[in-house]
Amino acid sequence: MTLPNLTPDVDLAAALFDALRERSFDGVGITREAYGPGERMAHALVRAEADAFGLETRVDPVGNLYMTLPGVDRAAKRVILGSHLDSVPQGGNFDGAAGVLAGLAVVAGMQRAGFVPGRDVTVMAIRAEEAGAWFPTSFPGSRAALGTMGAEELGVRRMDSGRSLAEHMVEEGFDPGFVARRERVISPEDTAAYVELHIEQGPVLEAEGVAVGIVTGIPGSRRLRGARVLGEYNHSGGTPRKYRRDAAIALAELAASLDEYWCELDAAGRSLVCTFCTLGTTAEAGFTKVAGEARFMLDVRSLDVRNCDLIFERLSMLVPAIEARRGVRFELGAEGGSRASPMDAGVQTGLLAAAAALGVSHKPMPSGGGHDAAAFAQAGVPAGMVFVRNQHGSHNPHEAMRMEDFAAGAAVISRFIQDFGE
Amino acid sequence: MTLPNLTPDVDLAAALFDALRERSFDGVGITREAYGPGERMAHALVRAEADAFGLETRVDPVGNLYMTLPGVDRAAKRVILGSHLDSVPQGGNFDGAAGVLAGLAVVAGMQRAGFVPGRDVTVMAIRAEEAGAWFPTSFPGSRAALGTMGAEELGVRRMDSGRSLAEHMVEEGFDPGFVARRERVISPEDTAAYVELHIEQGPVLEAEGVAVGIVTGIPGSRRLRGARVLGEYNHSGGTPRKYRRDAAIALAELAASLDEYWCELDAAGRSLVCTFCTLGTTAEAGFTKVAGEARFMLDVRSLDVRNCDLIFERLSMLVPAIEARRGVRFELGAEGGSRASPMDAGVQTGLLAAAAALGVSHKPMPSGGGHDAAAFAQAGVPAGMVFVRNQHGSHNPHEAMRMEDFAAGAAVISRFIQDFGE
Repeated sequence: MTLPNLTPDVDLAAALFDALRERSFDGVGITREAYGPGERMAHALVRAEADAFGLETRVDPVGNLYMTLPGVDRAAKRVILGSHLDSVPQGGNFDGAAGVLAGLAVVAGMQRAGFVPGRDVTVMAIRAEEAGAWFPTSFPGSRAALGTMGAEELGVRRMDSGRSLAEHMVEEGFDPGFVARRERVISPEDTAAYVELHIEQGPVLEAEGVAVGIVTGIPGSRRLRGARVLGEYNHSGGTPRKYRRDAAIALAELAASLDEYWCELDAAGRSLVCTFCTLGTTAEAGFTKVAGEARFMLDVRSLDVRNCDLIFERLSMLVPAIEARRGVRFELGAEGGSRASPMDAGVQTGLLAAAAALGVSHKPMPSGGGHDAAAFAQAGVPAGMVFVRNQHGSHNPHEAMRMEDFAAGAAVISRFIQDFGE
Repeated sequence: MTLPNLTPDVDLAAALFDALRERSFDGVGITREAYGPGERMAHALVRAEADAFGLETRVDPVGNLYMTLPGVDRAAKRVILGSHLDSVPQGGNFDGAAGVLAGLAVVAGMQRAGFVPGRDVTVMAIRAEEAGAWFPTSFPGSRAALGTMGAEELGVRRMDSGRSLAEHMVEEGFDPGFVARRERVISPEDTAAYVELHIEQGPVLEAEGVAVGIVTGIPGSRRLRGARVLGEYNHSGGTPRKYRRDAAIALAELAASLDEYWCELDAAGRSLVCTFCTLGTTAEAGFTKVAGEARFMLDVRSLDVRNCDLIFERLSMLVPAIEARRGVRFELGAEGGSRASPMDAGVQTGLLAAAAALGVSHKPMPSGGGHDAAAFAQAGVPAGMVFVRNQHGSHNPHEAMRMEDFAAGAAVISRFIQDFGE
């Protein structure tokens, strides 16, 4: 049997990218606040478009948006094509939005061709994936929908507003009680697969001349978001070395030492990343002072959590040594993190086959960042991801994605659904 | 001949310390802005007190305040007892003010005892000594009075307001043209000695159980106030090590390496300080990002400028090595600094003799910080300094000075003037 030649509606996606950019440019980059005005705008825009071309749209109690193209067998487990519409502050237009708009392009292309998939295809716009930038928790939108979010996480406070996730949900018209009651709207019993298209975020595809990545897994992480070094403020001229408790140099020593250790692990072939996302003295520091306090955020990720553990074991050796040497005290604060999430083998195979059938250049690769797909995989929903080549990383105003690469990624997903529906 | 037993009026000084603190507490520490409201308040307070007990008061064209107790021989070269009334932001009450109030206590004590010194004794409240915290230049008040300030320095901008030193002078009712014309009101021809009492700023006297330090010299410095490291913002999860240009880690490596070098020099007996007063990522950095920019301020000081040169030579070796290794670029910005200023041998001898005569515990010691006394020494005026033991450093809200140590320091200066006047 010959499959129909379905082309995703990339023009529709391009128009929505432009509209999103226009409405969320902050003067430097793109800002779409999770459970805030930027995300609200994006959801309204996308929902209006889905309504206009006749998808079934609904919103769950925590604000995730579902836009469904009905399939032949409406009782069959659906396929979800999802990603998020929020962004980091001063981020780019593609991180997250590309996955939602690819889903819309896929179903719009099917509808345009008169193709009815074997099962429902639902495009899902997930809330607050960039929680790491707004709320100190991971994937509250998808995990709430999957019933895997703890009630205690509702109390985390948004970094800019200081108000809790629950308060922000209520302000946007949603019901945090849904989380507290551990209800869910998605489960392995009703969902056959979750597929997420996303820009790569890293430079690997671009450097290797490949359009599309088929993701093998999403790394686990160990993270410090509010670590501090406490020393003593002193006059920079009048305080001899032996009397100092210099928090800035203590932090510099820690960061440089831990990075040297990562360099060793990297050279030994271990796959992980170790990032001091922020580090520095605080507003009280200034010229002619020895710094009495410094702060940092540490983000360690690997598909193999033992690599994260190695970094934290070294950290726990370095901290007391530096404390003793420099008369400072580290307060590492609460540790966060996540387990690694391998992508479903069947979904990976299907995506690889689709890319091969279409002649799209592709490679299997691990994800660097975390994605909602991890929450689906952790909840037992077969999950997969398609990475699209991107020129300037992500989480910055310079994110770049060629529309032909986006079209190739969307085509792989469209083809995957056709095969999967059979 | 027996000298009269002159006791400085420490009660007067204590009352003025209290009034200053009350009027310049900012909620955290003391803020008296150079050429701004805090300094203006302090000058008005001190001048009113000097007028009240009959000193001759006048203000020079750039706002320095002179309060003179006339001597027997009014044509003889005067002695100036000076320091400053401004503070760093959120600083302490004693840094600077102690020297002015000690001067007032000394002349008030003389007046109360009916003692007329051999020559005029002028208490000088100098403008903007904490220029390092407000204007990126050194000692504009004293150097303007001495005619050693360059006209181009009038253009430096105050860090908080963004307006120039000249503009701030005009706003306070003074005449920057005085500087531009290279006029002066103090010279070696009219001034026999400049003596400045100051809190120690470091912990040495406290640690060694000594009340008073007689300063041997003021260090020279080499300084970077606006240095930057430029890399590239990237996703912290998605960017493998080999593709990174991490500005935060590049700066940490520089700081830790330069500090190790200082540690070596220190162990070898070289006397210098090397301080990263501030270092860190900027507001664009955040969780899930590799930092694309970091900034720092570096302050290197020594009585022997060759020690500063050693640090900067090492810096200039480290920078290209780190740039090559990490794909970043350093922009060190303009370098500032000052020459070292030995204190006058005769003034040192006189102060040591006075302390010995009074039985005040004392030791000769180098200054750690810069002081207006350096500007006088550079201009050829014999200069000396008396340090008073201080418990919690300076340039912070916790500055502490026991009034009995202050009284001992003021008594040394009073005795010095009696001897010097003979």
